[in-house]
Amino acid sequence: MNNLGTSSYKGVRDFYPDDMFVQDYIMSVWHNVLQSYGYEHYSASILEPTELYEGKTSDEIVSEQTYSFTDRGGRRVTLRPEMTPTVARMIAQKRRELPFPIRWYSIPNVFRYERPQKGRLREHWQLNVDFFGVSNLNAESEAIQIAYDIMKKFGLTESDFVVKINDRNILNEIIAELDLNEAQTKEFKILLDKKNKMDNFNEKMEQLIGRPFNETIAPNKTITRLTEKLNAVGIKNVVFDPLLIRGFDYYTGVVFEIFDTDPENSRSLFGGGRYDNLLDIFDAERVPAVGFGMGDVTIREALAARNLLPKPFAPAHLSICTVTNSSASLEDISEYANKMAKNLRQSGVDVVVDYSDKKIGDKIKKAAKTGTPFAVCIGDQELEDKTIEVKELESKQTSKMNPDDLASFIKSKVN
Amino acid sequence: MNNLGTSSYKGVRDFYPDDMFVQDYIMSVWHNVLQSYGYEHYSASILEPTELYEGKTSDEIVSEQTYSFTDRGGRRVTLRPEMTPTVARMIAQKRRELPFPIRWYSIPNVFRYERPQKGRLREHWQLNVDFFGVSNLNAESEAIQIAYDIMKKFGLTESDFVVKINDRNILNEIIAELDLNEAQTKEFKILLDKKNKMDNFNEKMEQLIGRPFNETIAPNKTITRLTEKLNAVGIKNVVFDPLLIRGFDYYTGVVFEIFDTDPENSRSLFGGGRYDNLLDIFDAERVPAVGFGMGDVTIREALAARNLLPKPFAPAHLSICTVTNSSASLEDISEYANKMAKNLRQSGVDVVVDYSDKKIGDKIKKAAKTGTPFAVCIGDQELEDKTIEVKELESKQTSKMNPDDLASFIKSKVN
Repeated sequence: MNNLGTSSYKGVRDFYPDDMFVQDYIMSVWHNVLQSYGYEHYSASILEPTELYEGKTSDEIVSEQTYSFTDRGGRRVTLRPEMTPTVARMIAQKRRELPFPIRWYSIPNVFRYERPQKGRLREHWQLNVDFFGVSNLNAESEAIQIAYDIMKKFGLTESDFVVKINDRNILNEIIAELDLNEAQTKEFKILLDKKNKMDNFNEKMEQLIGRPFNETIAPNKTITRLTEKLNAVGIKNVVFDPLLIRGFDYYTGVVFEIFDTDPENSRSLFGGGRYDNLLDIFDAERVPAVGFGMGDVTIREALAARNLLPKPFAPAHLSICTVTNSSASLEDISEYANKMAKNLRQSGVDVVVDYSDKKIGDKIKKAAKTGTPFAVCIGDQELEDKTIEVKELESKQTSKMNPDDLASFIKSKVN
Repeated sequence: MNNLGTSSYKGVRDFYPDDMFVQDYIMSVWHNVLQSYGYEHYSASILEPTELYEGKTSDEIVSEQTYSFTDRGGRRVTLRPEMTPTVARMIAQKRRELPFPIRWYSIPNVFRYERPQKGRLREHWQLNVDFFGVSNLNAESEAIQIAYDIMKKFGLTESDFVVKINDRNILNEIIAELDLNEAQTKEFKILLDKKNKMDNFNEKMEQLIGRPFNETIAPNKTITRLTEKLNAVGIKNVVFDPLLIRGFDYYTGVVFEIFDTDPENSRSLFGGGRYDNLLDIFDAERVPAVGFGMGDVTIREALAARNLLPKPFAPAHLSICTVTNSSASLEDISEYANKMAKNLRQSGVDVVVDYSDKKIGDKIKKAAKTGTPFAVCIGDQELEDKTIEVKELESKQTSKMNPDDLASFIKSKVN
């Protein structure tokens, strides 16, 4: 006996059934929307060779924000901090066999060693969507359509979010016009990326470029055409944001983000863009690619803030409660209840048998508390008569019937 | 350009879509059967405090077979090697709030640092099922029923597997009769556990106990009653195996395993038992518990050996192919195709739009190769006429129709 603690590791979550229900709900929406677009599900281990992150991902992430260690065989291992390098590795490995264009998605957990804070945990799940092999704007348009459909499926309306789009080429032109050197360019991008979190953006920018930064930047042809394409399929809440810059360096063209318009929770819920040079680190031939990601923690908070999370439903349709005063017949009653449960399950009814030695009233109460819609009690009388009385726990209505009719009775009521 | 390798980390798997399809299939069978018994889904992080494994799990596992490291904040962390300590931690944490009896299941990935070999990988997924709060044999019976139902749902028949049951109390009586000391008892259990993998079991056993080990061991009342209960719900392939011992020390009563009867693949597919002292390491009040586990790698191999794995199905019901010679109208055609796809998805039809610049024949061939049942081509003519010709790719039959009738046409054919 050493009185071990019962807390989870710092910055990660335990998912008790009520929480898991919400988690499963979020993932089922992701799965359903992606499948409606014909995307195929893939996955990989959370363990990756550390080298995978040393080429492309920013240095800060590898050196300070990953879980990296050396295994007992001397191999350097990292718990993946994001899925993009993994999918690039997988695509590069089967570059010649894969039937491009291909559409893939995954829902991995990813790990960052950072101070836990609201919306930022050490482990979270992230939808990752990638469309490989199409170099025109149909790919960007489809990615944004999917992100939009996911938002709608979660019950959000167009006023709840805005789709911001930009083109890296516009940014590159601005940088060229400002005539910034490499270090200044890096600083410039960092400032833009953190703009919304800063109080002194204007000052800092003026320090950097030597004058106020107040150019009016017009959309280019790419942005105009993409906006038209999105409008054509009914997506009207698209805005051009010339200062939108995504954290990672790998984007090569259009970038986009979906922002929550709730002033209390104004932040990015989705982000992505085109990264045609994704396979460069593997020395592999280029594949045009558009992808985006969405985290479970941020969307969950956005849905919770709008009361859009579903209430957990009952674990089963029916609770069968066994009851008797004679322990001799309890065995027979359990057996009878088990057989009945077995038949019901074969007919598609989810059944729990309450074998506990609680009083019958408490068994019914427990079933009602979990939201189970029906209960049946099996005692000596029911065993003898071969009839049952089914109780609808919400209305408290009861109906007598032959056990053989129970499955169709329940199925007609729950559908 | 550093020509990075594209292999995964040693001993873990990449899941390309065809593999992931099989993985999702196995998990969906697990989910469905568990839900039919009213079990609730839970989960937790793969990261756990190392201390969790130092009390109860055998030393060998903590010292040699886990991935353990110290995080940047000096905390000792372990990638969970099994789920049982985690579920014990979670139950102990909410011991007073949880409405016992409770039924929980999870499908975690677990990690072991061992030499990769057939059926043994460094990361695998494992169904974990636990029933807390029932101290009588109804709990063991239900656990075995669930395991049995899963086997049947996978398409296995009673001749493909056998349910072996034993009672730790029988083993304890044998040990008491043999008058073994602590070290000898440990050795005795290890020999039993490895019996099937050893050539010299009889010799080693004789060395240990000083005479041939050939007692005839009769089932006790518990085993007899459990066998009757399982027979009553139609499970006939149950055998008493007095030498069945599960690797972990935490079992306190009935133990069981499902063995594959294929002589080429004779091994355990499921294993579990009663562990009423599960919460002892947390100094928490005891909770009666029965649980079992099943790994994805072993069941997948057993199903593959019998040709019972499903063939991957198409990512979508319909492929819409865009085709034109004029780049001016290609934009209009894409837009028309996108709108059509959008409407179809809203009616529950999964649609991919093939935006590639392949020839129309190649587009159709690609759709057919992925098993997509239907294709529609949209060109200048279709755009003008507002009619379409849908092709059934297997029979090559074509039907002309109004686009508005396409959803119900496809849905009537695929259901």
